[in-house]
Amino acid sequence: MSWKRSERLIDMTNYLLSHPRDLISLTFFAERYNAAKSSISEDITILKDVFELQGIGKLITIPGAAGGVKYFVQVKEDQVKPFIKNLCELLAVPDRLLPGGYLYMQDIIGNPQITDQVGRMFASKFSDQEIDAVMTVATKGIPLAYATARYLNVPVVIVRKDTKVTEGSTVSINYVSGSTKRIQTMLLARKSLKEGSRVLIVDDFMKAGGTINGMISLLSEFNASHVGIAVLIEAEEVEDRLVEQYTSVVKLSNVDVREKKITVSEGNYFTK
Amino acid sequence: MSWKRSERLIDMTNYLLSHPRDLISLTFFAERYNAAKSSISEDITILKDVFELQGIGKLITIPGAAGGVKYFVQVKEDQVKPFIKNLCELLAVPDRLLPGGYLYMQDIIGNPQITDQVGRMFASKFSDQEIDAVMTVATKGIPLAYATARYLNVPVVIVRKDTKVTEGSTVSINYVSGSTKRIQTMLLARKSLKEGSRVLIVDDFMKAGGTINGMISLLSEFNASHVGIAVLIEAEEVEDRLVEQYTSVVKLSNVDVREKKITVSEGNYFTK
Repeated sequence: MSWKRSERLIDMTNYLLSHPRDLISLTFFAERYNAAKSSISEDITILKDVFELQGIGKLITIPGAAGGVKYFVQVKEDQVKPFIKNLCELLAVPDRLLPGGYLYMQDIIGNPQITDQVGRMFASKFSDQEIDAVMTVATKGIPLAYATARYLNVPVVIVRKDTKVTEGSTVSINYVSGSTKRIQTMLLARKSLKEGSRVLIVDDFMKAGGTINGMISLLSEFNASHVGIAVLIEAEEVEDRLVEQYTSVVKLSNVDVREKKITVSEGNYFTK
Repeated sequence: MSWKRSERLIDMTNYLLSHPRDLISLTFFAERYNAAKSSISEDITILKDVFELQGIGKLITIPGAAGGVKYFVQVKEDQVKPFIKNLCELLAVPDRLLPGGYLYMQDIIGNPQITDQVGRMFASKFSDQEIDAVMTVATKGIPLAYATARYLNVPVVIVRKDTKVTEGSTVSINYVSGSTKRIQTMLLARKSLKEGSRVLIVDDFMKAGGTINGMISLLSEFNASHVGIAVLIEAEEVEDRLVEQYTSVVKLSNVDVREKKITVSEGNYFTK
């Protein structure tokens, strides 16, 4: 069967979207559609333009016999800004306030459309970096870590604060929670991270950064390093932040329990 | 700007894939591309054929003024069978064995390509059903629940076995673990599930089904009901299974710690 261009473009779009950062050779597509490589090249030019115009991502073509095409997620500022604005409004709803100034978050974290978009943003931010894994700490960071990892096409590594019997030998460290100053323990299954890995740290919330600092210490136990830190929400007005370099989607400036007022603004995603 | 068909098809593919089960009117597409509705109709016919041929999913068109097109994930048996076979082989690697006959799973559960494909399978199986939410229990079921929910375009509800201070009021139940016969507690934030919801239960592993049975009891506290149960792995040779109707991807028949042999076969996904 020979494919028409229109049919090829539909299937190629789906194929590229499902294989981010994979190098796909023109030969692969040529055989898949029983088409000439020159036609596939033309297809890719069309795909590239639409992907860029619509903020789907960028297609990088690598010439030569070992070459091909790679799809990288890339978000557009004018598409993401309204999303962030909407998220700020969602977060500022007073109903969200719980005793002690905590915020109920499951309606946001539980929405796959939101976690997926945040994952796209994080993957886009770090798409030029060499990344071997995304790391997070159980449990609220998990959906964001998977959404990001899916777009980066790398595995997820989950740090725990409790020992699970089903993980085999673990490496544990003690760390100081930045806000409560308490000493806590976090651990990672030895099998779950290769020595020397380059890791993107993802979490839902960062206050002083104690937990994230703990993950960085844990990485050094694996001779691994972090290439970046990405959080959904950062809490502003933290006196001694333990983490300097990070990217955030939104910033929580103030939670006034008495007045039932939550103040949220755009994070540093587009400024840092 | 007027769009060419080839360009429209690329963007429509991406748009449909990102909006599963949403009704998208032809007017929406016609305005988006500055095209005649008749051209959009023709586009959809082409999309429909390729989506079906390639196992991307099915497009259902609803005629009339309030009509449009809906994309449903639908997997093809000949594409999924090799995936399941591969998963069985991965699971049978003796390295995976931990003391007590537990299996190390994070390399599988931590792979977004795998969780995504399992999510596609689960969403495909229940795509005809009316579903309001996907429910799972923390923590290993979370990635599968999100992958499924993303394709069903519904929120995720996470049951916990420990109380989190940041969830507000919770509803808790006691349940009996099917294998250990111990009484345990699970809880769900009151805010996280609407009364009367129709819920798909997703988990990574089912032995006797105690945990899943617990989730069903919890649902009744919300006057909610389950429309289905989907697990990645079922353990075979369970004498008194508490759950009758479920779908599984793979079946773990035997774990021989002494001989270091794990026996895994295809689950009931294609037979039930």
